[in-house]
Amino acid sequence: MIRSRLEPQTGTAFELKAGETLRVIDVEGEQVADLTAFARADTTEWLSSGRSIDYANTIYLTKGHTLYSNRSRPMFTIVEDDVGRHDFLLTPCSRETFEIIYKNTDYHPSCFENLWRNLGEFGIAPDMIPTTLNIFMNVQVGKDGTLKILPPLSRAGDAILLRAEMDLVVGLTACSAEMSNNGSFKPIAYEIGEIDQLTPPSS
Amino acid sequence: MIRSRLEPQTGTAFELKAGETLRVIDVEGEQVADLTAFARADTTEWLSSGRSIDYANTIYLTKGHTLYSNRSRPMFTIVEDDVGRHDFLLTPCSRETFEIIYKNTDYHPSCFENLWRNLGEFGIAPDMIPTTLNIFMNVQVGKDGTLKILPPLSRAGDAILLRAEMDLVVGLTACSAEMSNNGSFKPIAYEIGEIDQLTPPSS
Repeated sequence: MIRSRLEPQTGTAFELKAGETLRVIDVEGEQVADLTAFARADTTEWLSSGRSIDYANTIYLTKGHTLYSNRSRPMFTIVEDDVGRHDFLLTPCSRETFEIIYKNTDYHPSCFENLWRNLGEFGIAPDMIPTTLNIFMNVQVGKDGTLKILPPLSRAGDAILLRAEMDLVVGLTACSAEMSNNGSFKPIAYEIGEIDQLTPPSS
Repeated sequence: MIRSRLEPQTGTAFELKAGETLRVIDVEGEQVADLTAFARADTTEWLSSGRSIDYANTIYLTKGHTLYSNRSRPMFTIVEDDVGRHDFLLTPCSRETFEIIYKNTDYHPSCFENLWRNLGEFGIAPDMIPTTLNIFMNVQVGKDGTLKILPPLSRAGDAILLRAEMDLVVGLTACSAEMSNNGSFKPIAYEIGEIDQLTPPSS
């Protein structure tokens, strides 16, 4: 098992084969990692927040839940989850996020840029990036629908373990936005595991 | 002003020019209409639930809110809204929705099919259809994240009025799913309005 490290405000993209596992670790605590995925065989199939939330019947996906593609096929199963609070409503932060929400027109690193720059190697264009699973991001929805972005509940070393249910191209970041990680920038670690012969993927 | 009618469990697609308005009317009450849109000039730009929710800071978009594309550009402004409760979390119902949620493996009409069949004329493939704005759909989010799909709050004749902020291709349905419209199937009406010279689009 090799542990890789994403420096603060960076991202990566890599292949993950069906049955392999991806562990995303919040090294220092209170940091967010944006995740997206595409079918390796046809990258017009993508991780769908809408399908996943609909079939799970909750906005807070955790251990035991399946993450579905836009074609309603399982892409990941959440096998372990130390935190149980991740966001699947909001898009990755982008240059425009900082302009529209924070009136910051200067250059700002962003998860969106870190995703498309790395996913480009796999033929994935910026316009193909959907709403991400924002791992460890703590978004609460009020009764009136208003969102509150609170500090992540993750402490140093907390992790989520996902099993790939099909061959995937995965994009992953250490989030660039101040507001989602309680005002600081931190690294994210991840580990890709071997195929587990004891628990074959369910599809 | 011409009023068009979508029969129960059907859909349509049409062009809408910047500054034109689209009024969607719940003719009988408690019915849902799924809406999506693409930039006319480049259909790889699409209506983004994630961007729209992020910038509005609420899941319940209503009068005064902007609906953004994946490129963070305004696609629509909500100009009037009789109901104030629409869903932007869930994907359009599809054959797989009925299989996965209701274990119904028989053919079932769906908003997803009604969207891709009609949007296909504009070169939009099924895989390009994002999470829709589900007009009049009443989804509540519990404190624990669990979703409740309740009968729409719309009464007969209630409407929402959207102004196009760029040239668009629009897909619209009269929803095919029993659960979102309190167990019955109903029509939806819509009207496309002239460009209003007094209120030019803000972008």
